Amino acid sequence: MKFLRFTHRDRSAFGVLAKDGRQVFNLTVELEGNPSDIPDFVAGGERAMAAAKAIWDSNARSGIPIAEITWESPVKPDKNVFCVGRNYREHIIEGNIARGVDPLSFPEAIEFFSKPPTAIIAHDASVSRHAKLTNSLDYEVELGIVVGLGGRDIPVETALEYVFGFTIVNDISARDLQRRHGQWFKGKGLDTTCPIGPVIVHRSAISDPNKLNIELFVNGETRQSDNTRDMIFNVQTIVSQLSAGMTLEPGDVIATGTPKGVGFAMKPPRCLNVGDVMVARIEGIGELRNAVVD
Amino acid sequence: MKFLRFTHRDRSAFGVLAKDGRQVFNLTVELEGNPSDIPDFVAGGERAMAAAKAIWDSNARSGIPIAEITWESPVKPDKNVFCVGRNYREHIIEGNIARGVDPLSFPEAIEFFSKPPTAIIAHDASVSRHAKLTNSLDYEVELGIVVGLGGRDIPVETALEYVFGFTIVNDISARDLQRRHGQWFKGKGLDTTCPIGPVIVHRSAISDPNKLNIELFVNGETRQSDNTRDMIFNVQTIVSQLSAGMTLEPGDVIATGTPKGVGFAMKPPRCLNVGDVMVARIEGIGELRNAVVD
Repeated sequence: MKFLRFTHRDRSAFGVLAKDGRQVFNLTVELEGNPSDIPDFVAGGERAMAAAKAIWDSNARSGIPIAEITWESPVKPDKNVFCVGRNYREHIIEGNIARGVDPLSFPEAIEFFSKPPTAIIAHDASVSRHAKLTNSLDYEVELGIVVGLGGRDIPVETALEYVFGFTIVNDISARDLQRRHGQWFKGKGLDTTCPIGPVIVHRSAISDPNKLNIELFVNGETRQSDNTRDMIFNVQTIVSQLSAGMTLEPGDVIATGTPKGVGFAMKPPRCLNVGDVMVARIEGIGELRNAVVD
Repeated sequence: MKFLRFTHRDRSAFGVLAKDGRQVFNLTVELEGNPSDIPDFVAGGERAMAAAKAIWDSNARSGIPIAEITWESPVKPDKNVFCVGRNYREHIIEGNIARGVDPLSFPEAIEFFSKPPTAIIAHDASVSRHAKLTNSLDYEVELGIVVGLGGRDIPVETALEYVFGFTIVNDISARDLQRRHGQWFKGKGLDTTCPIGPVIVHRSAISDPNKLNIELFVNGETRQSDNTRDMIFNVQTIVSQLSAGMTLEPGDVIATGTPKGVGFAMKPPRCLNVGDVMVARIEGIGELRNAVVD
């Protein structure tokens, strides 16, 4: 099942995409407790999930046509989005070469940082160019983990049980700010630089999150094309290490790092400009499309 | 005026400390709209402030005795606490020496990072030692900025108008994790490692936030003793640079960096142990006390 948040007739709702992908069922209206987001829905437990599945299975034609909705970010955490830095071998090598350091210098532990919730935007929403602040706005397609069950000190072996599902995150980055400010937050925190969506695929529909094709296109041209199997730290390891000593909560989002092919590492660098359209695609999840505007 | 959040008879409330510091007036009960935190109170505008001031000025004896309350963090943002890295000249030098790099290597721009809201605890609450995760838990007293008016691209000249007031933050840090994970989030994000409080002093009561004595004691021994005038980037600059391209919201908290005297830079390093009691003190605000527990 693919879950989403959307606006229809000026009302915001949580829902599930019909099997044909052409209509949406409004779970905020249909379910007991009127869940409006992932934490609400998860709080409803297996009963809410069974009710959602019954609606999804019914395949009724009573849904809202997809053309009538405005997409919202499928999950909208209050806190910052957790992010993982350099996590794909080839991306680390390209970054090291671009920075003039040893190509084979890999992180010994996961480089966690965050993006503020003010940066989150939906599928189809626009990314600001921030031309007064940066000369090097860049894309990064990433597999997003959406936490279902909260917890702390989660073992690797059971980590997937704490995951509600998976989404796509485009970790838009201002490379010059990222570098100048030492820590990455400033270059990663600008408004509109965290597209998430279009949907969250429940984990039961993903046989192995560590084996998914992951791609990003700019104006139709392939820029990133890899597979999550090339992650140095896989989904289970990330959940486990992030939760060590730190409580994860339902609806938390974790972006898991990006593969090779980012703009700043190209020769010459090819950064984002006004009018560019990015499509981030992950196998089994869908396509997250965002245009860059002035 | 000194604002706080507290629990009294199992009810959480927002309030103001009486002039004598011995009782608390419950603004959640007394004020129109029942504000329960800074964003609520700020939304009430000048009218709410005038009403709070009238109660504070009345100096009535009808308040709640301070001994009857449980302190809560005076502000409890949903999002992460914004933090500033190396910002005091002498602290940068001591850190550089401890790491074996050029002592006079200073940051060229503000090093922003964050601490998750799950790390926030109140005055008098306990800090976990996290002994399974870290061998080098350390203290950092910092002036905390509490945002009143939200905004983006805030000019330095008017930055103080966006500040509601000031508090104390103890940015507890696991030095080994901070170093091993490259980015600082993991070493700064553990549960209970962000004591905030005890109060927020309204900015009208602080003549110059960039001229305040700032100290930290462990078991009564002075470890940090400096003045906010030694910050490389002052309060106005921090607000302005953080808000460049990124929207600040009411109730956001910004920790502004710590002065010299941290434990990891001592020879030999003196990190926190179970039973240690930290008192962080800033002139005009008060004392934030937290003990380390197993």
